Amino acid sequence: MAKGLPKRSEDYSAWYNELVKKADLAENSAVRGCMVIKPYGFAIWEKMQQTLDKMFKDTGHSNAYFPLFIPKSYLSKEADHVEGFAKECAVVTHYRLKNAEDGSGVVVDPDAKLEEELIVRPTSETVIWSTYKNWIQSHRDLPLLINQWANVVRWEMRTRLFLRTAEFLWQEGHTAHATRGEAIRETETMLDVYATFAEEFMGVPVVRGIKTENERFAGAEETYCIEALMQDGKALQAGTSHFLGQNFAKAFDVKYADQNNELQHVWGTSWGVSTRLMGALIMAHSDDEGLVLPPQLAPIQVVIVPIYKGEEQLNMIAEKVSVIRKELMKKGISVKFDDRDTLRPGFKFADWELKGVPVRIAMGARDLENNTVEIARRDTKEKATYPLDNVSETVEQLLKDIQENIFNKALTYRDEHITKVDSYEEFKQVLDTKGGFVSAHWDGSGETEERIKDETKATIRCIPLNNEQEEGTCIVTGKPSKQRVLFAKAY
Amino acid sequence: MAKGLPKRSEDYSAWYNELVKKADLAENSAVRGCMVIKPYGFAIWEKMQQTLDKMFKDTGHSNAYFPLFIPKSYLSKEADHVEGFAKECAVVTHYRLKNAEDGSGVVVDPDAKLEEELIVRPTSETVIWSTYKNWIQSHRDLPLLINQWANVVRWEMRTRLFLRTAEFLWQEGHTAHATRGEAIRETETMLDVYATFAEEFMGVPVVRGIKTENERFAGAEETYCIEALMQDGKALQAGTSHFLGQNFAKAFDVKYADQNNELQHVWGTSWGVSTRLMGALIMAHSDDEGLVLPPQLAPIQVVIVPIYKGEEQLNMIAEKVSVIRKELMKKGISVKFDDRDTLRPGFKFADWELKGVPVRIAMGARDLENNTVEIARRDTKEKATYPLDNVSETVEQLLKDIQENIFNKALTYRDEHITKVDSYEEFKQVLDTKGGFVSAHWDGSGETEERIKDETKATIRCIPLNNEQEEGTCIVTGKPSKQRVLFAKAY
Repeated sequence: MAKGLPKRSEDYSAWYNELVKKADLAENSAVRGCMVIKPYGFAIWEKMQQTLDKMFKDTGHSNAYFPLFIPKSYLSKEADHVEGFAKECAVVTHYRLKNAEDGSGVVVDPDAKLEEELIVRPTSETVIWSTYKNWIQSHRDLPLLINQWANVVRWEMRTRLFLRTAEFLWQEGHTAHATRGEAIRETETMLDVYATFAEEFMGVPVVRGIKTENERFAGAEETYCIEALMQDGKALQAGTSHFLGQNFAKAFDVKYADQNNELQHVWGTSWGVSTRLMGALIMAHSDDEGLVLPPQLAPIQVVIVPIYKGEEQLNMIAEKVSVIRKELMKKGISVKFDDRDTLRPGFKFADWELKGVPVRIAMGARDLENNTVEIARRDTKEKATYPLDNVSETVEQLLKDIQENIFNKALTYRDEHITKVDSYEEFKQVLDTKGGFVSAHWDGSGETEERIKDETKATIRCIPLNNEQEEGTCIVTGKPSKQRVLFAKAY
Repeated sequence: MAKGLPKRSEDYSAWYNELVKKADLAENSAVRGCMVIKPYGFAIWEKMQQTLDKMFKDTGHSNAYFPLFIPKSYLSKEADHVEGFAKECAVVTHYRLKNAEDGSGVVVDPDAKLEEELIVRPTSETVIWSTYKNWIQSHRDLPLLINQWANVVRWEMRTRLFLRTAEFLWQEGHTAHATRGEAIRETETMLDVYATFAEEFMGVPVVRGIKTENERFAGAEETYCIEALMQDGKALQAGTSHFLGQNFAKAFDVKYADQNNELQHVWGTSWGVSTRLMGALIMAHSDDEGLVLPPQLAPIQVVIVPIYKGEEQLNMIAEKVSVIRKELMKKGISVKFDDRDTLRPGFKFADWELKGVPVRIAMGARDLENNTVEIARRDTKEKATYPLDNVSETVEQLLKDIQENIFNKALTYRDEHITKVDSYEEFKQVLDTKGGFVSAHWDGSGETEERIKDETKATIRCIPLNNEQEEGTCIVTGKPSKQRVLFAKAY
């Protein structure tokens, strides 16, 4: 167990908070609810960004940048949208400070009041659709496929590093289409991109589904989502893709001339994932020793630790390491040689375990003699001695195995934690004991959904895509239901 | 001349504004002073980012992310710093909106007033140094070499796309060191990185120098800068690197235990370049036909335009183009095949000239017969027919030539526009007629500098590094001077 890291079984929440700090991922800043993402944490986020960015470009999207500020009146143009975001907005009201007359520092200059307040963007639909109005005239301007990497602010009262912060980093895609069908296909395509990213890169299995009306994005006609399961049995929404219908096109009067030269409102989508994914990544795989990173997103995939007495031995090891290193780098594998001379190997082992480096290579005096290395994998903690000759092939294969193994482990856990229940009693009991997703019949009403949430803290995470149709009765009201939906307590 | 683009000789300023819009680089947003960076403009910025980011990492820096908001009291901790930035701050005072009682929309909720106002970061020294206090204890924690890519806000009254906007994108490096000497070396190293980037990637020659006290960054002991010259004879500060001394370490009480276990304040630097570089890039090379992009930063390096009658001919051309394309892509060259069927070749030629694509390949019926292509370069507008066989080598060489040529052209212009003068009369005359840098003796006083600025609008751009020592007298006061400094009107 890493020094000072609580056990998951004892206090999962404390384990998470401490892990984020001790592994140098992030910390709370002096500004309420805002975090500092530390270099090691940011390096993981950069890998996520690069991977996603390539996937967005491969599906035809371009990046652009829109203003941080949204005029207050813009937010109001789409009724549901303002209703959803008004209560958690950072509002800029002035544009200047001045020296306090009593010499106590600076104060807001009352003469520098803005005519119209500006909202720090909680999401950018309004400012982007007001821009699209000028960019779209003809069907030849469509589809318009744009993404933005940005910071956004939602004034959350209770915050947790990565999972819920007042400011967070994200990407938001905003697309415009000529037809309803095309916009829905785009919404689904991007959900697919997110699901692929979560499963193949993060190693986190996800359920693809649709949100109920209560949980829908403010301003959307339909919200698609991917839902992941954490090790404590709580669900985490890992990404959303919204079919906006013509809501924002109508609010901002965005029309195009179709092939018959008739004006039509365009159809929209928006989709986003955020630094919240960091929380999902950490909670899905890590253990009481620290982080477990999937090789695909680990900033350092292999760490090499020398075990030596005296400089001469270190030099001999360093010489062999430099060969290994070159071979690994040729295969695109990132390597760190930890030759810090003030720390013992045991400390280094624990340190890199805490940081989740997938593969550790150790080389000592006996290895020098035998032309071997000891290789340990972070996920299973298995270690073995290998010949030096084809160490890069061994490591390459190991990284693949680890990526696969952590996904499969998470998948098994997830599948074991989808429980079908047919009564409200059973529903509550599963939630309280086993946790995970609970698959149950529901009468389709917002009232029942609210009641269940109030009584159990569980929400409907989604109606899974390609859901099996099955006759049944709502576990609460006994009214007829045609399909089960997935409930869970969630982050 | 591109349709509707003013000539540089007639109205340079209008030419710039129109070019930025017509080439799809950026536009003004609905939010005062904030711009929208359009996909094509953003693609150039992304190339700048990627290049610089690699240079920062190669010199040992890591990326991190710090909060958007700065508590008002933090800004005040360094006296010069608050003095420099207080007058142009966006201030967040509330965290919630509510429905207006008269139903007219949303209003600021007076019950949601922040206890302490938050400033939208104009730069991040204060929030970062308050964090460094916890990160730095020992000499082993140093140097701390961190960079952040972020948006910042400075409430400018008169704004211009890319050159001066209320919100802009930038990177800001913030480093901490054990000794004064090491911090100064870092400041100089990063200036070097900026100069190399400007010259080798942007193709913009720069003067490296030091700012006078008047022009120094608020909170720095010394500000280093690179200064470029635009085609209208005005200078543009393209990057700055600040030696902060112990100012911020003292303001935020950041100390380390040295090897004798004695507590010392650390030494700091900060350095940044912004989307302003886009303005420099545009103004340094472009002409009355549109943008001229250096191949190193062009999102599309080669455009291929087919000249055909009927689909059969287009298919034959497309077949050959796909071979060329593959060969170019193998060399890492980005290619666009413009097969839009509703536009004439002449329109496409003008369009890609406007967008500054370095190399244009045209292929028509005769080329099909002769196995040739016509290749035109954007910078000199020369074109010639080349055999199809080794077209990728031809293009590769051409891209190198263009990169070199636009740098040399800008260098010649710059060198021809450094004028030594020995009287104030001559100084004013050169400024009014020829423009450019004026090299003159100055008595070293802030008053004289201010007077010259008031009377001529010229500022001291820098005291060049490795400046020749030369006895002389100040052109205004006649007082003794030991070196010339560079004046210019500037953006």
